[in-house]
Order: sequence, then C-alpha cells, then structure tokens
Amino acid sequence: MKRSIVELIAAKRDGHPLSRDEIARIIADFQRGEIADYQLSAFLMASFLRGLSDDETVALTEAMLHSGTVLDLSHVPGVKVDKHSTGGVGDKVSICLAPLVAACGVPVPMVSGRGLGHTGGTLDKLEAIPGFRTDLPTADFVKIVSEVGTCMIGQTKDIAPADKRIYALRDVTATVECIPLIVASILSKKLAEGIDGLVLDVKVGKGAFMKDEARARALAEALVRVGTGANKHVVALLTRMDAPLGREIGNASETREALEVLHGEGPSDLVECTRVLAREMLQLGRVAATAEEADARIDEAIASGAALRTMERMVAAQGGDARVVAEPSRLELAPEKVQVLATRGGFVTGIDALAVGLAGVAMGAGRTRADQAVDFGVGVTLAKKPGEPVAAGEPLATLHLRPGQDAEGLRARVAAAFELGVEAPTRLPLVAGRVTA
Amino acid sequence: MKRSIVELIAAKRDGHPLSRDEIARIIADFQRGEIADYQLSAFLMASFLRGLSDDETVALTEAMLHSGTVLDLSHVPGVKVDKHSTGGVGDKVSICLAPLVAACGVPVPMVSGRGLGHTGGTLDKLEAIPGFRTDLPTADFVKIVSEVGTCMIGQTKDIAPADKRIYALRDVTATVECIPLIVASILSKKLAEGIDGLVLDVKVGKGAFMKDEARARALAEALVRVGTGANKHVVALLTRMDAPLGREIGNASETREALEVLHGEGPSDLVECTRVLAREMLQLGRVAATAEEADARIDEAIASGAALRTMERMVAAQGGDARVVAEPSRLELAPEKVQVLATRGGFVTGIDALAVGLAGVAMGAGRTRADQAVDFGVGVTLAKKPGEPVAAGEPLATLHLRPGQDAEGLRARVAAAFELGVEAPTRLPLVAGRVTA
Repeated sequence: MKRSIVELIAAKRDGHPLSRDEIARIIADFQRGEIADYQLSAFLMASFLRGLSDDETVALTEAMLHSGTVLDLSHVPGVKVDKHSTGGVGDKVSICLAPLVAACGVPVPMVSGRGLGHTGGTLDKLEAIPGFRTDLPTADFVKIVSEVGTCMIGQTKDIAPADKRIYALRDVTATVECIPLIVASILSKKLAEGIDGLVLDVKVGKGAFMKDEARARALAEALVRVGTGANKHVVALLTRMDAPLGREIGNASETREALEVLHGEGPSDLVECTRVLAREMLQLGRVAATAEEADARIDEAIASGAALRTMERMVAAQGGDARVVAEPSRLELAPEKVQVLATRGGFVTGIDALAVGLAGVAMGAGRTRADQAVDFGVGVTLAKKPGEPVAAGEPLATLHLRPGQDAEGLRARVAAAFELGVEAPTRLPLVAGRVTA
Repeated sequence: MKRSIVELIAAKRDGHPLSRDEIARIIADFQRGEIADYQLSAFLMASFLRGLSDDETVALTEAMLHSGTVLDLSHVPGVKVDKHSTGGVGDKVSICLAPLVAACGVPVPMVSGRGLGHTGGTLDKLEAIPGFRTDLPTADFVKIVSEVGTCMIGQTKDIAPADKRIYALRDVTATVECIPLIVASILSKKLAEGIDGLVLDVKVGKGAFMKDEARARALAEALVRVGTGANKHVVALLTRMDAPLGREIGNASETREALEVLHGEGPSDLVECTRVLAREMLQLGRVAATAEEADARIDEAIASGAALRTMERMVAAQGGDARVVAEPSRLELAPEKVQVLATRGGFVTGIDALAVGLAGVAMGAGRTRADQAVDFGVGVTLAKKPGEPVAAGEPLATLHLRPGQDAEGLRARVAAAFELGVEAPTRLPLVAGRVTA
C-alpha cells in the first residue's frame, strides 16, 4: 500500500529507510505541487538529522536528475568526463582544465555555476570575455561538445529543476550542510550532462566549504559511492585550499590566469591543481592508462598549442572574442591600482581565503544575492603567496578598482588577510587524498 | 546580536538551546508572516528530533498563549481551576465535572474542543442540548463563570491563534507526537482561560492517544513541570483507558450519562473518574485541604442537588433547554435500535475503544474532517463492560441508528470490538499514577 507523505516523513523521522520508489514519488509529487514546501522542509530536516543511506541518496539523485532533461551525448565518440569542484576562492581551474582535457581527446561537457558569497563562479569569469555566451540552448551545447570537444554553459531551467527548488528551500531552512543532500544536489546536475565519468575536486581547508578534513573525506567518499551507484565512473581528489588558488581573484583576471596555464605558464599551485585533475580525467576518459601517460599527453597538448586551439574554438563557438586566448591581456582590468604593502618583513605564512573572497565581493567582483551583476574588471592580484619571503614596504597584493571605490577600506581588508611570520611555513602537498570506487 | 531564523533552526538542529526571547521571536515572526511555513516546519522537525528543554517549552507555551487574548478572571473570587483530558472514547467527564466542582465553590472556566477522528468532543455532546450555545463571546463567558461558577465554550479565534496554525502544520509534517510540542499546545490554550490551576487527565492504554504507560507518564510529568514553570498550580493523573469510559458513546447519549452522574447515578468507571479529578480540583481550588474533605464536599454537592442546579443555571445561561438536566431522557436518541448479541457466553475481557469510536464516527456521531456536522442522536450503548459475565444470545450493546443506515455492517464492527474469555479479567485501578510539582 502506498504510504502518504506524512507517513514517509514519519518513517524518515524515526530513522527508517524509504524505498527507491518512495523517494522518487516524494520528488515527483513535490514537483507537481502535491507535496507542499513545508512538508518537504520537514522531510529534509528529518533526513539531515537521521541521514540517508547510499541507496536512498542514489534514489534521490536520480529522482532529481530525472525531474528535468538528461542530455544524450551517446552520438559523441569517446568517454565523456566532467569535473566538479566544491569551490573556493580563486578556483578558475575549469577554464583551463576543460579545453586541456578536450585537446587530449576526452570530450568535456561542462555545466557550471555563478558566484555567490565569497566564491566566484566559472560563468562570471568566462563572461569577462567579450561576447562569450553561457546561456546557449541545449542543442548548441551538444553540437559544440561534439565539434570542439568541450563547451561550458550555465544550468538551464531544464537541468534538474527539482534540485533548484530543493536547494532554495534548504538555503532558508538550515538543511544545507548535509552530506547526502549535498551529494544528490551535485550529482543530479552533473549527471544531467550525459557524462560517463566525473572527477570531483573536494576542497578542504580554511578557504573551502569543508574546513575539516574528515568531513571533506566523508563527502568525497559519499560522492564516489553514490556516483558509482548511479553507474558512473567517479574519482575524487581532496585538494587543500587554505589560501586562494593562484594569484588572481576576480573575473577577467582569473580568466587571464587560467589562459596562462594553457600557454604553459601560470602560478605553480594552479598549474598543479589543473594537472592532477586532468590526469584523472584522461584516465577515466580512457586516453591514458597511467598518470605518466596522462602527463605526457597534457605536456604535449600544451606544448603543441592544441589546448590553446581548443580554447579558441570553444570561445569562438560560444560567441566570444577568441583573440583573448592568444592575448589574455586583452581582458581589461579596472583602472585604479592600489598597492597593499607589507608593514614588516618575514614570510607569508597564510592568506585568509575567505577574507580575500569577501573583499572581492565588496569590490563588486562577486555577489551576495543571486540577482546581482558582477564587475568583471575589479579584483585582487596576490604579489606574495604563502611560503614566500617579503620585505617591509614590498607589495603583498594589488587591488584593481574603479575610480571612487573605498580604496583605503579595501586595502585594509586585504592587508588583514595576510599572516606574516619569521619562518617559512611547512608546505603541505596540494592533494590531501584520493578516493576511488 | 539577533540570530536569523536560519541560524535559530540550525542551533536547534544541532541540539543547542534557544533563549526565551528567541522562541518568542520565532512565534511572533511566524504570526506576522516573516517566518514561512516551510521554515517553521523545519524548526518543528528539529525540535521533534532534538527535543526542547522545559525552559524552552515554557517559552513556547507562553509565546503561543500571548499570540492571542488571555482572559482576565482576576475579578472572579476564588482560585480558578480547569481540567484537561488527553481524550478518549466515551470521555464525557467534563460535562459533569465542571458543574460539580463549581457547585463546590471552585470556579471552572472551561474552553473545550470538538470531536475529530475516533474521539468525541465535549462541544458536540453539549450541543445535543436544544439551544445550547458554545460560541459565546468572551465577555459572556467571563460573566457566566462569574455568576454561575462555570461556563463551557469552544476555542475562539482569539485564543492562542499561533497554536491553531502550528497544530495544522504539525498535522501534515509528522511532528504531532512530540511531548514538548504537545505540552505547549495543551497549556497555551488552557492558560488563555485565565486559570490559576489545572488538573490534567492523561489517558493511557489501548483506547488513548498514549498507548504506552512510560510515555504517558513522561507527558504528564512534562505537563506538570512546564505548567508549574508558567506559574500555575498543576497536577496530573494518569487514568487507564483500555475500553470506552462509561456505557455510552455518542453525543446526546453521553450528555445523558454525564447528567446521571450529577443525579448520583451513572456507571462506576465514569463516576470514579469524575470523582478523582474533582478531588484534585477542589484541593487546587483551596476549598478542600485533603482528599477526604474533597470527597465530603462532592457527596454533599450531589446529594443536595447543588451540582444539578449549577448545571441548570449554566445550561440556561448558555441558551440551552435546562429541563434536560432534571430529565436527561429529553435528549433524543436515534430511533432505530439494533442489538449486538453475544454469540457465546463468558466474560467480557476487553472492548476495543478505538474500534467502537470509529464505529461511532461511521454512524455519524463523529467526524473525519473538521468541517463535518455530527448527528447528536446516533451512538452505541454498551450493555456489558469488561469484567462482566455474558450468556450466549444476551445483548453486548445496542446501536442507535437512523433508518436506512447500514445496521448489519455497524453491528458487525461493534461485535468485533468485544473480546470474550472464559475468566474475568484482572481489574486494574483506574488511576495509574499521580504527578505533582
């Protein structure tokens, strides 16, 4: 006999498992308006406190996935692989990773998000390229993936619409920080892209959503288990994010920095993060059998300019000015340059990523509400990164501002994000862990 | 700094206590529409699973109480005392208890409810008296309590309106069976009557809301602790409810039976239940120092006819035909009499109160939706109660039906509610426990 929604909420409240069909029915009835917001929020809180099993999380993921369109990329040859990052300040990896991996022969259909709060969004960074469109129709997305090897767009209203509504409800009912719900939200959107494999970059540290390594590992493991349960090839890396990634925080400036990686340049932490993720994607994509083989292909794609050409073709296909790929400095930064100087010498022992991210939001590079516009040109360039020595009076960072902005206040905020010490800090490896099925 | 509603939900979700002011703000903001239903339901589920402390429950009770009008009976001399029962099949105690206690000198301002599901409601039973009005304005209620000593009305929209909205939400979000929420709901309504003391009749057993004695005791203890915390004199009795109370299940028939108690008659379990509660009320009301003194006053009020006269005055004041008090048979029963006969001899070992209650609802004596009307005249009269011997072919019960009702189906349902055995069952005392501050 079919249990009513009240009975299903009560079952979860009492810690009993729900069947796959029951979870599917909850999501479908919620989408149809037969389950009210206040019933779903009670269910979400019960799920938060009682947990959802992997089977339940797979069922929830698939129910949210099938609330909308699931792209069919079966006619695109190759193993389609995407990457998802739990996000962090300065994380522009997607912008260089997708064309690099595509240039190595693995198709990368990538649906990304916008910035909110202290972290920026890939779409905002890409839109700093004049003319670049991230709102392409699904058919164009499929065509570009097929022809260029990669395409990067925003979530359309057809992709996992139940996730969008449920996330909005979680946001206002204190049910965000729940691993099974996070897993279902991430995977339902990614699986809608029609991918075969997924590499997850779970950030851990002071600048990340997950500050605690044990919890980040639990999230990574749940993502791999549930993604595997949904018949995808999934690998997760735990990567450290205590300070911002790379030296640029902004939109145009981050795209510039990502393009530098395709030129064989760029800051070492960004280059390394891109490489470790690309390695996994090439192996999942069956174009490399080992990390060494993957490295060789990555080196070749950069050295030959293949990665740059893929990026140029993608930018052009998405309506953007492809000249920026060869000449990243075409991406304009805001005109006022404000130096943040060290008041004493020593070593940079830390940079508070959250504080820098929030300073970026205050400048206009990010947003606090989903309907705000961003300023592509403003941002922060870090002159010094953790581990680097600095003399008193040397620049720690440069702010790129519009005339009339509160230069003094923003300088003070960014200065306060730097931690100086007398000794160089121990440098921890970027990758804190790797989780496979 | 004021925490946002999302922070308050998160605090409760994580098992942290909220302050009195924070709970007051949740209820006030909910009433003003600044907290959405879906946020309150998440809070209720978090409260269900994490619990509320006594301090929090007192704060919740008082916030719900002050969401509406709190009557001021301070000009009525004496200690005002009411009774609340968690409800059960055949529970018509309020109808005889209120005038009896008032006749002994303790004012009883009583706001009652209607029947829903398998249990009947005091208001429905009283309205079987021709002309009797339960929807009096507050001013009339206060005047009648003052002049007659007791008055029995329904919950107005001014009494604890937050409780009404919250209860409606709990009902559809699986958050009903939660002791702190039950306590706050009961006490907020009762405290709005302007009482000084409250006697709680917590029913326990197969026919009660609380089937389990430990849980019923936990509820009774929480009611006493929280009521005391809200500065009221509170006593709770645990009374057993395995079979229906008394011999009548219906509306007119239950009022008849309650009136019999005031005549010094009536079935022994109903008489006893009324007496044990009256004893507590007289002591809380400071007109008796001991149970023995209370008993003497109860006996006197019944023997002298004082209790009957109080009932007559109350019925008249509320617009009803006061002749029914002297002559309960004036309350009309439905004309079709259907006997339920024993198919074999033995002892009645049990009567399933839930099954009898649901049969009553099916007859039209109760309702399954709040907007349904009830039929005052239909009902069940139990010819045999648990412990009584019965011969094959003797009546177990009589149904009072309207012509054309499904006599055969209803007879079968009521017959199935009887459990017969070869030996008389052990009779447990009515009162299973007493909880005081």
